[in-house]
Amino acid sequence: MDKVKVIEIKKSVFADNEQDADLLRKELKEKGVFLLNLMSSPGSGKTTTLIQTINRLKDKIRVSVMEADIDSDVDAIKIKEATGIESIQLHTGGMCHLDAEMTRQGLDNLTLADTDLAILENVGNLVCPAEFDTGSCKNAMILSVPEGHDKPLKYPLMFSICDVVVINKIDVMPYFDFDLEKCTEYIHMRNPKATVIPICAKTGEGVDVFAQWLLEQVNDWKNN
Amino acid sequence: MDKVKVIEIKKSVFADNEQDADLLRKELKEKGVFLLNLMSSPGSGKTTTLIQTINRLKDKIRVSVMEADIDSDVDAIKIKEATGIESIQLHTGGMCHLDAEMTRQGLDNLTLADTDLAILENVGNLVCPAEFDTGSCKNAMILSVPEGHDKPLKYPLMFSICDVVVINKIDVMPYFDFDLEKCTEYIHMRNPKATVIPICAKTGEGVDVFAQWLLEQVNDWKNN
Repeated sequence: MDKVKVIEIKKSVFADNEQDADLLRKELKEKGVFLLNLMSSPGSGKTTTLIQTINRLKDKIRVSVMEADIDSDVDAIKIKEATGIESIQLHTGGMCHLDAEMTRQGLDNLTLADTDLAILENVGNLVCPAEFDTGSCKNAMILSVPEGHDKPLKYPLMFSICDVVVINKIDVMPYFDFDLEKCTEYIHMRNPKATVIPICAKTGEGVDVFAQWLLEQVNDWKNN
Repeated sequence: MDKVKVIEIKKSVFADNEQDADLLRKELKEKGVFLLNLMSSPGSGKTTTLIQTINRLKDKIRVSVMEADIDSDVDAIKIKEATGIESIQLHTGGMCHLDAEMTRQGLDNLTLADTDLAILENVGNLVCPAEFDTGSCKNAMILSVPEGHDKPLKYPLMFSICDVVVINKIDVMPYFDFDLEKCTEYIHMRNPKATVIPICAKTGEGVDVFAQWLLEQVNDWKNN
């Protein structure tokens, strides 16, 4: 099995995370690196979605990944093995989210000179990560069908800060009471501008649409 | 639609939550109330599991429920409508967990004199609720099949503090790569004493076993 770099993230000392996040975005702009912050509940399929998406993008742009987890490095290894791109593991040591300074600690361990798109897979949690700006250029989240279409009602902040909501595991829709139309309506109650993309990461269905959306964000950001 | 009492939970001022949790357990013991703290990811089926379980227990013991959520009161209403028991909603106002003092604020709004078993449905989150003792007599968690059998590796603390792990949505096992044996092994790595109970809350399969486990805990606690 491949080895990956594992970074033990230290707690931030900065008082003003908003300010630090803006600073990080500025630094990333200068380096020509687009940062995507990907969030979701545990087990919604973040890693599988990333693998499918990266394999569609890696010939067009240079992608690196940071996998945040409380413990274990299985996700970073999975990404590296399945895509061949640079993938590192961030250990949060029990912390339930990443802020801008913690994200910077991860970025410092990536080869940014060879990166157009850096993806942060945040800790699996719909509550705390939504409260901390990581310095990302865009926020994405994955909601999987088994979790239910009512989640935007229960986790309002998460849905309000995301630019795109990927609805994963649509292949199992027949076995769950999941109403995609109602879910989209609830998401737009929280954030009228959010893009909603239904996919099945396991089969690859719909992943082209998400990959295309992401590529456009990276290009728009580089050219503006 | 039924109305339910909604309590806006205030942030705790106590410095020592461990001590306060022990105090709450003592208070509950004196009142003859057993408190169960039920945790899980968003969308794992906590509310459906509770409805099925309560309907099996309510003729044997008196049950009350506190539904903690960041926002919305849909769960407390669902429980009340489906079981007829006392059910109140706790709003955490964005907070990602409950501690002992916050739990006490909820308990103060239940009719404890008519309660043998009070159930706290904690905020949907596998990280933060695990760090705060609520004063409960036992901790339970639900892991649903679509989340994957590797979750005990990724959220070690949650699995180590739970007395029982209910594996929900076993009806969809054929559509997911979920290895029940491996999952049980991982759970026991974290906590060798944890009871593992596979169920399907939708069809009721296995719920008798969980209801029986819970009834035994309540009786043991009352008699010791």
